[in-house]
Amino acid sequence: MQLSSLSSVAKVPFSVKAQFPTVKKNNSMAESTAPKWAQKTISLPPYRRGCHLVTSKIAKEIEQDLSGFKCGLAHLFLQHTSASLTINENYDTDVRDDTETFLNRIVPEGSSAPWKHTLEGPDDMPAHIKSSMFGCALTVPITNGKLNMGTWQGIWLCEHRDHPTSRRVVVTLNGI
Amino acid sequence: MQLSSLSSVAKVPFSVKAQFPTVKKNNSMAESTAPKWAQKTISLPPYRRGCHLVTSKIAKEIEQDLSGFKCGLAHLFLQHTSASLTINENYDTDVRDDTETFLNRIVPEGSSAPWKHTLEGPDDMPAHIKSSMFGCALTVPITNGKLNMGTWQGIWLCEHRDHPTSRRVVVTLNGI
Amino acid sequence: MQLSSLSSVAKVPFSVKAQFPTVKKNNSMAESTAPKWAQKTISLPPYRRGCHLVTSKIAKEIEQDLSGFKCGLAHLFLQHTSASLTINENYDTDVRDDTETFLNRIVPEGSSAPWKHTLEGPDDMPAHIKSSMFGCALTVPITNGKLNMGTWQGIWLCEHRDHPTSRRVVVTLNGI
Repeated sequence: MQLSSLSSVAKVPFSVKAQFPTVKKNNSMAESTAPKWAQKTISLPPYRRGCHLVTSKIAKEIEQDLSGFKCGLAHLFLQHTSASLTINENYDTDVRDDTETFLNRIVPEGSSAPWKHTLEGPDDMPAHIKSSMFGCALTVPITNGKLNMGTWQGIWLCEHRDHPTSRRVVVTLNGI
Repeated sequence: MQLSSLSSVAKVPFSVKAQFPTVKKNNSMAESTAPKWAQKTISLPPYRRGCHLVTSKIAKEIEQDLSGFKCGLAHLFLQHTSASLTINENYDTDVRDDTETFLNRIVPEGSSAPWKHTLEGPDDMPAHIKSSMFGCALTVPITNGKLNMGTWQGIWLCEHRDHPTSRRVVVTLNGI
Repeated sequence: MQLSSLSSVAKVPFSVKAQFPTVKKNNSMAESTAPKWAQKTISLPPYRRGCHLVTSKIAKEIEQDLSGFKCGLAHLFLQHTSASLTINENYDTDVRDDTETFLNRIVPEGSSAPWKHTLEGPDDMPAHIKSSMFGCALTVPITNGKLNMGTWQGIWLCEHRDHPTSRRVVVTLNGI
């Protein structure tokens, strides 16, 4: 692989729509408009099998870093294959319970299940499948120092194993 | 959280494979090679329940901004929990219809459904589940000012509620 | 669309948690801390229908570029609508086989299937559905020149068609 390469003193045009406060022109050298990266690994405490709202737990871990970004993206990456991250309703706990009910109906478990991979327990193979159904990563826009989700959106950790364990999430923030 | 910090005048090496036009070396200070961010919220019109091809609607809203990026990523974030964004076939409407058929078969609805969350109507809890199955966000590579999707790929908005409503998408562009 | 715009000489604060080696302050002009983009399209060889571990194939194609990033994100984008990319268990081939079994049970195929889109063969419409279930794109954090996945995580290509074909993946790297 031969790569062409190019260097430059970076100018950082910041283009946003009206909902953003206009950045003052005489502020154009400000640190706040320079591209920034932040990355950290956070640990979520053990949760019982099921879907759990973790927005505030994650926000608490990253809000200080987040506040430095006018515009950007937050990437959350769960380093596990038997749990998942998804964005869904943030208000009624029944929605989380019903989603867990759905996952258990759709993915066979126990003696009726056709799985070859059973050494780690009857809940392990179903957990892997659920992890790929919902995914292990999320990317959320950052706007004015906050995660720019909809009114009813929240971040869920879905624990698919019977035995609760702490789960690691690599958070990467990128923006200006 | 104690963060280490570092500042520098940014050099922006641009490394791409052969399919890109080689960027001229004497052009290395050009604005086009500096990191840029653009973010806007667009509104998709109300669609009936089902899967809909929205590539051209979204492209129209962002094509002017997009044209300024040689290389980058476009992030689309649907701010709702009862609809979803996915990438799939862009030609035969039957594929969208069949996908809607699948979703309705896989997620029980109505009197036979086991849901506790029913206050917002029989289509609401199924809509939440379908939203997590397909997801509410997409990231698409940008190459030479365009979304770099495959020949047969298109962006779908999947409306999972019976009552059509306008849907908001936060689009974040990042690249050089 | 009226966009406000702003330019600046970029400062690049690099904020990371303790697990990163502290970047020396007198090294602050180093290329390694400047924002970089790299993008290339790689071809995966034809795989038979089913789930396949492709971490090492992808790593081999991008490891040289990857090694230049201290912190960033790697985006993988499959340019097809009848295959998918997912992250799951990297050790026991039974997990991949069982996941393929699950997908075939959940998505009807053949004479009992309700699909209208059948012209491209009985495996085509199921392939499209599976592609949206698992998705065609992944974003993985980069830390110290490597993909920062968990111990048991690997990248899977899931081929949903009967006839194996080569599959293109657009890889975009962004970071410092």
